[in-house]
Amino acid sequence: MTTAQPIPGLANVGVVGLAVMGSNLARNLARHGHTVAVFNRTHARTLAHLESYAVDGTFVGAETVEEFVSSLERPRRIIIMVQAGAGTDAVIDELLPHLDEGDIVVDGGNAQFTDTRRREARLRELGLHFVGTGISGGEVGALNGPSIMPGGSRESYAALGPILESIAAKVDGEPCCAWMGPDGAGHFVKMVHNGIEYADMQFIAEAYDVLSAAGMSAAEVADVFREWNTGELDSFLVEITAEVLDRVDPETGRALVDVITDAAEQKGTGRWTVQSGLELGVPVSTIAESVFARAASGDVAIRDAAQGVLSGPDRALGDVDRSALVDQVREALWASKVVAYAQGLEQIRAASEEYGWDVDVATVARIWRGGCIIRARLLSQISDEYAAGGLATLLVAPSIVAGMAERQDGWRRVVGVATSAGVPVPGFSSALAYYDTVRADRLPAALIQGLRDNFGAHTYGRVDRPGTFHTPWSQGGAEIQMS
Amino acid sequence: MTTAQPIPGLANVGVVGLAVMGSNLARNLARHGHTVAVFNRTHARTLAHLESYAVDGTFVGAETVEEFVSSLERPRRIIIMVQAGAGTDAVIDELLPHLDEGDIVVDGGNAQFTDTRRREARLRELGLHFVGTGISGGEVGALNGPSIMPGGSRESYAALGPILESIAAKVDGEPCCAWMGPDGAGHFVKMVHNGIEYADMQFIAEAYDVLSAAGMSAAEVADVFREWNTGELDSFLVEITAEVLDRVDPETGRALVDVITDAAEQKGTGRWTVQSGLELGVPVSTIAESVFARAASGDVAIRDAAQGVLSGPDRALGDVDRSALVDQVREALWASKVVAYAQGLEQIRAASEEYGWDVDVATVARIWRGGCIIRARLLSQISDEYAAGGLATLLVAPSIVAGMAERQDGWRRVVGVATSAGVPVPGFSSALAYYDTVRADRLPAALIQGLRDNFGAHTYGRVDRPGTFHTPWSQGGAEIQMS
Repeated sequence: MTTAQPIPGLANVGVVGLAVMGSNLARNLARHGHTVAVFNRTHARTLAHLESYAVDGTFVGAETVEEFVSSLERPRRIIIMVQAGAGTDAVIDELLPHLDEGDIVVDGGNAQFTDTRRREARLRELGLHFVGTGISGGEVGALNGPSIMPGGSRESYAALGPILESIAAKVDGEPCCAWMGPDGAGHFVKMVHNGIEYADMQFIAEAYDVLSAAGMSAAEVADVFREWNTGELDSFLVEITAEVLDRVDPETGRALVDVITDAAEQKGTGRWTVQSGLELGVPVSTIAESVFARAASGDVAIRDAAQGVLSGPDRALGDVDRSALVDQVREALWASKVVAYAQGLEQIRAASEEYGWDVDVATVARIWRGGCIIRARLLSQISDEYAAGGLATLLVAPSIVAGMAERQDGWRRVVGVATSAGVPVPGFSSALAYYDTVRADRLPAALIQGLRDNFGAHTYGRVDRPGTFHTPWSQGGAEIQMS
Repeated sequence: MTTAQPIPGLANVGVVGLAVMGSNLARNLARHGHTVAVFNRTHARTLAHLESYAVDGTFVGAETVEEFVSSLERPRRIIIMVQAGAGTDAVIDELLPHLDEGDIVVDGGNAQFTDTRRREARLRELGLHFVGTGISGGEVGALNGPSIMPGGSRESYAALGPILESIAAKVDGEPCCAWMGPDGAGHFVKMVHNGIEYADMQFIAEAYDVLSAAGMSAAEVADVFREWNTGELDSFLVEITAEVLDRVDPETGRALVDVITDAAEQKGTGRWTVQSGLELGVPVSTIAESVFARAASGDVAIRDAAQGVLSGPDRALGDVDRSALVDQVREALWASKVVAYAQGLEQIRAASEEYGWDVDVATVARIWRGGCIIRARLLSQISDEYAAGGLATLLVAPSIVAGMAERQDGWRRVVGVATSAGVPVPGFSSALAYYDTVRADRLPAALIQGLRDNFGAHTYGRVDRPGTFHTPWSQGGAEIQMS
């Protein structure tokens, strides 16, 4: 056994996988006074970690899985920080022969919640606890305080929670970590967090695009975002948007953002969020538009073929009042963001019902206030509103109703102006369409039901009495009550 | 063995499942001179079919699967018309012991193409052919000529194609039936057909909603649709929209559409289309918005909570020039429809590449010209454009480029007017955003890449040279070339 320091008894917690996220999480644990057993498949990386980070606290380095497991106090708390997917199963398989009843295996990767459900069921049968946990905040968050979203048995949280809470980000003294619910609840919440992150970033990109179309430079837009970050839009993503837009490329002397390829990439969590929304029947349209906007930006063959061929306005807003536009875009950004949160949190509520998790949505919003990528001042308001209880949707929370009422004129103006100028705003317009859909006293969905009954005899309901009905449309026959 | 008429030798084709779709398909086959073996789990239904439809031609009714199979000439052609899912597997399992090498089992239900791939592989191993085929046109189409989209081995099409072509709808003398490609290709094409159908119906609903907001009655809008059906929008769905909007409810004396519950329902194919689009990375945003618009319309709890609480314009367009608006809405409808086709056909192209199907998109559009729910004059144009070859996207086809150029002003006006008035147009605006996205010479996706690199070190590309790059944003360090 290789140790960086003398072993002061057994380790309190173990980390498997010492790539940046795992290594930083282990350092964060050590800094908070926990003795941390560390293991990496390539032992050299373990040695490098021990050598570099002894200053952070007490690590116990193991060369084999067996050594690693036996260096941990019981019940063992083992956090797996490897690439999600087959790698996670491989590590679990390696660990299993050495574990004892009641040990807790934690997956801190971005696993599909369905995989987490499968793994949790498997380990539960073996008398072990499996905790799928979301960890958001990137490399910096892992080191200095992430937002942590653990699922799994309530019992496991009693043993694991205090350690995770000690390393989580703190907001108003409260840790951004809480038990989300059984089996896949933690990874589900993290997936939706990422889906909302996609929407947040798409809205920010649209805001930047509209302001650029008004003739503002990247540096000027950076100033706007910096200013926004002192008010209602105060958030990590708005803060780093200013940072990114401010950056000058020394090679060209241009704003770096103007030199970066405009094809956005993605991993899997945004897509998963939309797929789950479709399964659950929850409209997560803003997230879908955001995922698809990235895909469309990356479709070079289509874009190359279309540029200069498809006609339309030249994306210039012309002679607008910039100061008024900046205010309207701020309003569009805030209102759209609220819709994305409403959709994402509704998805969590629906999943909680579907899978029997009993997730507390107020708590979800509370632990997103710090540490994670979507941390934002708005989340305190959202958490408070859900805690007050009884919300059918975030949109009807009193402070949100008032906020939307104030901002919707600007929001509509931005969508209108962008639409006329040929600046694509799929996120803003989808969010607004959702808002107008849920508040409508009457939707043209009645016509869709009529059409479905016409060509497929799918039946329809009537507003004036219960039952299902069918009209033999083409034969001109009378309506028939089917049930 | 029960027969309606003397057996003139063995049957040419068999149908399992005599619910309306199966029964009508069997009648269609008989009307075209084929001797049709029919079998239904509940024998009474077989007897009823034989009794009612002897006039259509020659049926051979079987009481057992064994009788049914032995009444068919070889290679046997057996079309399964049961509820998609476990029922299909059950029928296959019942048939298998009685089949001989080279027999062809056809699934005419709305199966998931992944299920079709699984079933095809299984039967191929047993020396049998499995053909998953889309059949569109509803009950009426099944009887009088549907659009038929068979997948499976090319060899099986040689034996099966002529029979299917004989009963398919005809346009300009050509059957709306063609071999789509191996294994799941047929059901995939049918799935996308249905996805486009969702979008088509959503656009129609939005057109109706906007015209209603201008103060037009259902009957007045019906007149508009009837007029549209004589021009560029000539299509089955536009035709039956007029029929539905014209209908008066005798009970209330109101337009029936105003009495129908405005909560749209759905089965699975729209959702599957979007899920597949997400898998393939093809933006099918118009279809996603259509699926989500139905889901949102059906969320009674949220709508009830939001109505009268969320503020916004009162959905009245006020004093507009109706005749100009009608033209603009027609343009919005045509242009949005083109985008939905562009997205859906791109999805078929991408799937064809992913699964090695070699689907001919021009042929797909050709067999959609008649028989199916989305049949439309526009499809001849689309088919011709794809046949001319080399399209990166339908949007750059010469006649489409010209068509969009003419109509986009009206399209933008409709989105603008609806947005100001609070009439939700998620489909129109999503289609327009996609159009403006693919034609943009520069997208704000560059900012998204910058943000991703900032918080997650995900790297970015540069427009001026190859490679991937990372900037240590917060530390102010210089850009690093990563590859």
